Amino acid sequence: AEVKKIAVIAGDGIGPEVVAEAEKVLKRTEELFGYKFETEHALFGGIAIDEKGTPLPQETLEVCQKADAVLLGAVGGPKWDNNPKELRPETGLLGIRKALGLFSNLRPAVVFDCLKDASTLKPEVLEGTDLIVVRELTGGIYFGEKYRRDTEQGQEAVDTCAYNVSEVERIVRQAFVIAQKRRKKLASVDKANVLETSRLWREVVNRVAPEYPDVELEHVLVDNCAMQLLRRPASFDVIVTENMFGDILSDEAAMLTGSIGMLSSASLGEGSFGLYEPVHGSAPDIAGQNLANPIATILSVALMFRMTFGYADAADAIEAAVADVLNAGHRTGDIAVDKSQAVGTKEMGDLIVAAI
Amino acid sequence: AEVKKIAVIAGDGIGPEVVAEAEKVLKRTEELFGYKFETEHALFGGIAIDEKGTPLPQETLEVCQKADAVLLGAVGGPKWDNNPKELRPETGLLGIRKALGLFSNLRPAVVFDCLKDASTLKPEVLEGTDLIVVRELTGGIYFGEKYRRDTEQGQEAVDTCAYNVSEVERIVRQAFVIAQKRRKKLASVDKANVLETSRLWREVVNRVAPEYPDVELEHVLVDNCAMQLLRRPASFDVIVTENMFGDILSDEAAMLTGSIGMLSSASLGEGSFGLYEPVHGSAPDIAGQNLANPIATILSVALMFRMTFGYADAADAIEAAVADVLNAGHRTGDIAVDKSQAVGTKEMGDLIVAAI
Ligand SMILES: CC(C)[C@H](C(=O)O)[C@@H](O)C(=O)O
Ligand SMILES: CC(C)[C@H](C(=O)O)[C@@H](O)C(=O)O
Repeated sequence: AEVKKIAVIAGDGIGPEVVAEAEKVLKRTEELFGYKFETEHALFGGIAIDEKGTPLPQETLEVCQKADAVLLGAVGGPKWDNNPKELRPETGLLGIRKALGLFSNLRPAVVFDCLKDASTLKPEVLEGTDLIVVRELTGGIYFGEKYRRDTEQGQEAVDTCAYNVSEVERIVRQAFVIAQKRRKKLASVDKANVLETSRLWREVVNRVAPEYPDVELEHVLVDNCAMQLLRRPASFDVIVTENMFGDILSDEAAMLTGSIGMLSSASLGEGSFGLYEPVHGSAPDIAGQNLANPIATILSVALMFRMTFGYADAADAIEAAVADVLNAGHRTGDIAVDKSQAVGTKEMGDLIVAAI
Repeated sequence: AEVKKIAVIAGDGIGPEVVAEAEKVLKRTEELFGYKFETEHALFGGIAIDEKGTPLPQETLEVCQKADAVLLGAVGGPKWDNNPKELRPETGLLGIRKALGLFSNLRPAVVFDCLKDASTLKPEVLEGTDLIVVRELTGGIYFGEKYRRDTEQGQEAVDTCAYNVSEVERIVRQAFVIAQKRRKKLASVDKANVLETSRLWREVVNRVAPEYPDVELEHVLVDNCAMQLLRRPASFDVIVTENMFGDILSDEAAMLTGSIGMLSSASLGEGSFGLYEPVHGSAPDIAGQNLANPIATILSVALMFRMTFGYADAADAIEAAVADVLNAGHRTGDIAVDKSQAVGTKEMGDLIVAAI
């Protein structure tokens, strides 16, 4: 098989531990399915600040640009929280998204059967919840002009939120296509009763919608969406929205599943290139103790196989292995009912590798 | 007693019906407590568009400006949804906030005992939830410059989000004072890892915090707050945040209580002037059928008595009357388990009036 290049960015906190287990899974699928992967490690986030003086070193960007896909662990931690902006892990995250043209963030929020009691929602409300938030990732208020200026009322800070037609159109079309492959329902979320960018957003959605006649479209205002996610989570299929709203709503959606330690995400650009990472953070409090749950990162590998490489067989096998291990009752501390029976990060990785 | 002037804006949909019940309550407190109210009705929202060609007629603004407080029912409906911006009810809402200088929106989210099963959250998670969102209401991306322009990538829309030090300081100080009178915990919500306005916001919070040493302060990122509201709602006391984040989070917080039909809100400026309204919308589908629940509007009167007039005795009496009527088992359709036993809007109003 053709050799696929994977840039591996372990990052900070529990990042290196969970990524190590995902790499075991990569190895095992090479043996079983005959695929060939070439991994190259690169520094990113806090560790890159410490070792290279910048969260996103040029070499790291080059490693990613030469690769077919990127596997990311997690970045950030209190150590860098009070740094100036250029020396913060988040700045690296925004930088890598922009530099790699990753304009779309897919955040599936599904309920794992064995974890449904972990949700704070009632089981009957959660029943059947399986949605995906498609978040625009390289535009809006995240990347608009930002500055301070002096006014008569004291210093003023300004952020600019801008979207052009092409930026909206590419993400909206992608969401329609994703909906066509799922339950064919799309909720476009905006604040068109207040924002000009939202009015443009809604115009574009309405213009392209007739090209996807099999998809049922609803427009939902962002405040209402925050409510409806709580009231009727199972009724959503695909939600598409701009960067800032997507940040908030995808976290709300993830949390309501109760499965946040198990969720993976994909950031995509044009073509098949993608960056894959768990939804959870770097959890510095449990880092280096073999306590982290590697499942979200392992499932990120499955997502990469499916979306970037088209290796559906291996993706299926990994997902089935995770399900088998969970069904057999194995749990890391975060998802164990009886913590004394919990297995460690490495043991969970080994169990999944053995089950593939 | 001194005559208090109340501007009454019934608005659209169920607005006139719920406001009529609140006015009965006003009358009854005059008789019982010797207070004197002078009410003046004014057109606002959709009905003002229909009758005066603008959502916020100059006369309405003058009625409000001469008053000591404003009681608002609800505005909006599908009839006006596709109007151009100047002819939309929301535009009136933004206009009245700005014109009356209502920079602060207080949205208490409490769980009514008789409604705790109506929440989609598990009762054990909801237990003890009693929080208030203090939302900045006249700044940020809602009121910043908005425009379109042509670019090489097609038309672009722009919204500007701006905050100056004084705008942040007045709302933050108000939130600290509110926290001092409650459980002394303040969560300031921002996106300081991305936005310049949020960094200014956080600087101001940190600068004034030492003046309120009895209040325990935490900074929470907006995406994390959307999650924590679901995970640990009872741990929040006062949440203070900017306009757009407050719009989303206050609706999320209201919905998780399960009591949305019962929640009231206050919009305040400098001094004691305030505008009071139910959190729910105009519910055009049930308008004019004597089906609406008037409790949130009646509780808005109690809030007005407490916050603008300092009539704690009458406010207590109204709140106690609502509790008595609910404890006696009376319900409007929206909160009734057995809908066939539900009472109408007028009957609920009469029951509460009788119980004061
Ligand atoms: C760390 C932060 C800049 C980032 C974002 O807001 O995009 C994070 O919250 C995310 O969702 O990936
Ligand atoms: C109708 C709309 C403009 C308004 C807002 O976003 O402020 C509403 O959602 C609210 O919260 O009062």
